[in-house]
Amino acid sequence: MAASRPATPDQAAFLEELLKHHVLVATGVQGVYGKGDRFEAVRLGFDALLTRVAADHGAAERLRFPPLVPRRLLEDTGYLSSFPHLAGAVFSFEGTESDAAIQHERASAHQDWSEFQQMTDLVLTPAACYPVYPAIAARGRLAPGGILIDTGASWVFRHEPSGDPARMQTFQMHELVRIGDPEPVLAWRDEWAQRGLELLRGLGLDADLDNASDPFFGRQGRMLAASQREQALKIELLVQIAGPEPTAVASFNYHRDHFAGTHGVELADGATAHTACLGFGNERVTLALLRTHGFELERWPTEVRSQLWPA
Amino acid sequence: MAASRPATPDQAAFLEELLKHHVLVATGVQGVYGKGDRFEAVRLGFDALLTRVAADHGAAERLRFPPLVPRRLLEDTGYLSSFPHLAGAVFSFEGTESDAAIQHERASAHQDWSEFQQMTDLVLTPAACYPVYPAIAARGRLAPGGILIDTGASWVFRHEPSGDPARMQTFQMHELVRIGDPEPVLAWRDEWAQRGLELLRGLGLDADLDNASDPFFGRQGRMLAASQREQALKIELLVQIAGPEPTAVASFNYHRDHFAGTHGVELADGATAHTACLGFGNERVTLALLRTHGFELERWPTEVRSQLWPA
Repeated sequence: MAASRPATPDQAAFLEELLKHHVLVATGVQGVYGKGDRFEAVRLGFDALLTRVAADHGAAERLRFPPLVPRRLLEDTGYLSSFPHLAGAVFSFEGTESDAAIQHERASAHQDWSEFQQMTDLVLTPAACYPVYPAIAARGRLAPGGILIDTGASWVFRHEPSGDPARMQTFQMHELVRIGDPEPVLAWRDEWAQRGLELLRGLGLDADLDNASDPFFGRQGRMLAASQREQALKIELLVQIAGPEPTAVASFNYHRDHFAGTHGVELADGATAHTACLGFGNERVTLALLRTHGFELERWPTEVRSQLWPA
Repeated sequence: MAASRPATPDQAAFLEELLKHHVLVATGVQGVYGKGDRFEAVRLGFDALLTRVAADHGAAERLRFPPLVPRRLLEDTGYLSSFPHLAGAVFSFEGTESDAAIQHERASAHQDWSEFQQMTDLVLTPAACYPVYPAIAARGRLAPGGILIDTGASWVFRHEPSGDPARMQTFQMHELVRIGDPEPVLAWRDEWAQRGLELLRGLGLDADLDNASDPFFGRQGRMLAASQREQALKIELLVQIAGPEPTAVASFNYHRDHFAGTHGVELADGATAHTACLGFGNERVTLALLRTHGFELERWPTEVRSQLWPA
């Protein structure tokens, strides 16, 4: 089992409140929760709002992917070099009837049955945008001006058990992905960081932008993180949920030609495209709203309610 | 790799059409697809219709669960005895930096890196209702009359790669779960089978009900399947998608006290509850509608459009 990140007293107390009020539902595993009616009402309200705001700023193509992607996608993108500790691989049973009987016997006794499981060609989706790039590459060269994709709320996985309710192992990330020439792609990313800040502040959240880095693995990872910060490739939207540290609820990422080069996404003239993505963590935004405005949704400020649940 | 079920010529041709029109998007793994705008429009329209029909027939509590559940849930319910071939377990990396380097090197060369992966305490959700029972049990005894839960469209996994587009490995199942005394639970299941039939026929689908059984594993499984049929525990709604055989697009299942007994779900008087669930496969209903009415949604019959996309 992965070592669990200890929760701060504030995080532990917030989780207890969420469970007590059936906003979240415990499953027995840290970072994996059911969601009650109030949680879903807020989450769906925010996700629909984000979809409307996005539609006001460029026609996006809707493209949805499941919580699983081909293992080959992780192998090809270097994810296992940067984030081996966060990945999840799907294993399944391929044995005989007598193997199945032994596996079942062990499992029923909560003993180790892993030897009967073999790696499949599927892994858990690490980020909503990962399957987008090969799908776009498969269409051939981009039209002039590039493309904008909306993934909707998409399930992703990070293997980091934690007592902080805002750090889930399985959660929904709504991404927009912009693919095209370097300058408009970077400009789009920067405009959206500002738009995201206004969106969250308009919902009464005390949000701020900050230059950030990904949680790269190991010693080499610290250098990668420093380089990422230096080049301002990642901007995060931070909100105080359960403290003392603020939590990133959205990020705005410029990949240069990393993903397009890996998957062969080409501009109209055959040059390698540049890509950027932004992702709003549905669960984290929901928790930030619940922490800020309380659990009684009907008492939330009218200007927040009217945006989340327009008549 | 699991042996793939061969597709019939009709299934292979339908999949090719779906991919050609960007209704589905290939990922490189059979049974794992992205979905284009048209697919999602139909799927969301049907799922919203189902939610409205359900709301007209009993107040359900909304309870959502992620695509992963605790491994313990599979171990406790006998799933690995009945369906070892369909289960998926999540494995992750717990090693050192040098392990990570070797794992990455192997993965980049598409060699076997499974030895660096260890079983976690999570598995893929086998059916939308599985996490519902322990969540309800944890609340204590049921109120008189029992309870009705709506899981919404919930991601589930079945490890059965196939060239039939209607047999996906990862798909969305919208379930309703009824928990209470035996008689009203069974009556609810039977009413819903009839209601489901009317719902699908009202959408222009040539649907039929049939007594059915689950795809139990092995020789012993054939006896379980025969017993399940004999007791009429499982009713399926069948529609012709790609032939020659019709496809089950929904099922209506009476579990007697199986799940309630396993998880300790008790009636108001302390007796073990009975449970039933029904599930509509979002993707299969969507494919049935696309196969029946074609890919030009704007040409679908007005009475179908008005139900899926009310003004």
